[in-house]
Amino acid sequence: MSHRIITISREFGSGGRTVGRMAAEKLGIPCYDQELIDRISAETGLMKPYVEEKSENIEGGWLSFMAGRDFYGHSMQDDLFLAQSKVIRELAEKGSCILVGRCSDYILKDFDNVLTVFIHASMDKRAERIVNQYGERAEDPFARLRDKDKKRKAYYQLYTDREWGAMGNYHLALDSGILGLERCADIIVSLY
Amino acid sequence: MSHRIITISREFGSGGRTVGRMAAEKLGIPCYDQELIDRISAETGLMKPYVEEKSENIEGGWLSFMAGRDFYGHSMQDDLFLAQSKVIRELAEKGSCILVGRCSDYILKDFDNVLTVFIHASMDKRAERIVNQYGERAEDPFARLRDKDKKRKAYYQLYTDREWGAMGNYHLALDSGILGLERCADIIVSLY
Repeated sequence: MSHRIITISREFGSGGRTVGRMAAEKLGIPCYDQELIDRISAETGLMKPYVEEKSENIEGGWLSFMAGRDFYGHSMQDDLFLAQSKVIRELAEKGSCILVGRCSDYILKDFDNVLTVFIHASMDKRAERIVNQYGERAEDPFARLRDKDKKRKAYYQLYTDREWGAMGNYHLALDSGILGLERCADIIVSLY
Repeated sequence: MSHRIITISREFGSGGRTVGRMAAEKLGIPCYDQELIDRISAETGLMKPYVEEKSENIEGGWLSFMAGRDFYGHSMQDDLFLAQSKVIRELAEKGSCILVGRCSDYILKDFDNVLTVFIHASMDKRAERIVNQYGERAEDPFARLRDKDKKRKAYYQLYTDREWGAMGNYHLALDSGILGLERCADIIVSLY
């Protein structure tokens, strides 16, 4: 494959989605984030808000894991993961792009034209961001961050059997709170 | 402080030391690695090979932890850590530089002019490197890597109470096996 793919995994509130868009714009390639939701929704017939929430978050714990599973232990979320894997692979085969979240780093692990990036930031910086930029309630944004971190981590571990945020899975990991979003995008562009 | 410090933490065999030297040369600032050993040795009166081995490696396990400790649970390695902290802080206060390993990321955690970098690579790439570049025995380099990883991890956790290689402790983490040493150095230089 002569084209190149960049996957961006990110902590909630780190601005990783914005970094992806900035880098894609600078490179003149598509960035799939919301469009990923649209395509997975079209593929599965599931509503977009359900896809958005369930394509990278899961409640932790054994009871939640079992809820909604059939006799064979299979759930609607498993189908969703298969559908999102298919959509992500098709996009990666089609041409150069940036893919944000949804285990794309893992789904494309056997592709040799992929740069895997992880964007993270301190709790303080992320709390500031989710209140000021995402419009989250200002009361205890830390609880919201801890909840989202827990759900993304549980989801990632369930479907990839890898540890969420483990350095070894990423070619490049950047602290957006220290480096700034623009500089993160520039580093990604320089490696393309 | 107007000057800037870069700390480079690295997995054994990742070439992080070389990346540090390359970046320092490009920036025209000193890189303290072997010189750190010399200074700690001078500070403590301990032999250089002892300092080199004991300033970032420890045997895991409770028995090893207790060996060589006095009635108060204090060991010579504790003194060594205090001495290396002093040397690292003095160098960081003196002027711009790159510091390789020896928990410098943790020791300088309250300095606001520090960029913390972690260099890692896959087991395969590191095995190749320690055999070809460091002249390690070609029989089972993986066992050697696992042993070094374990000792560095145990040391770091004992003296810093942080998890070794946790992404959140580093502003920048790079896979030198994928990106190459030169490119890792260039990214560091671009962030200086």
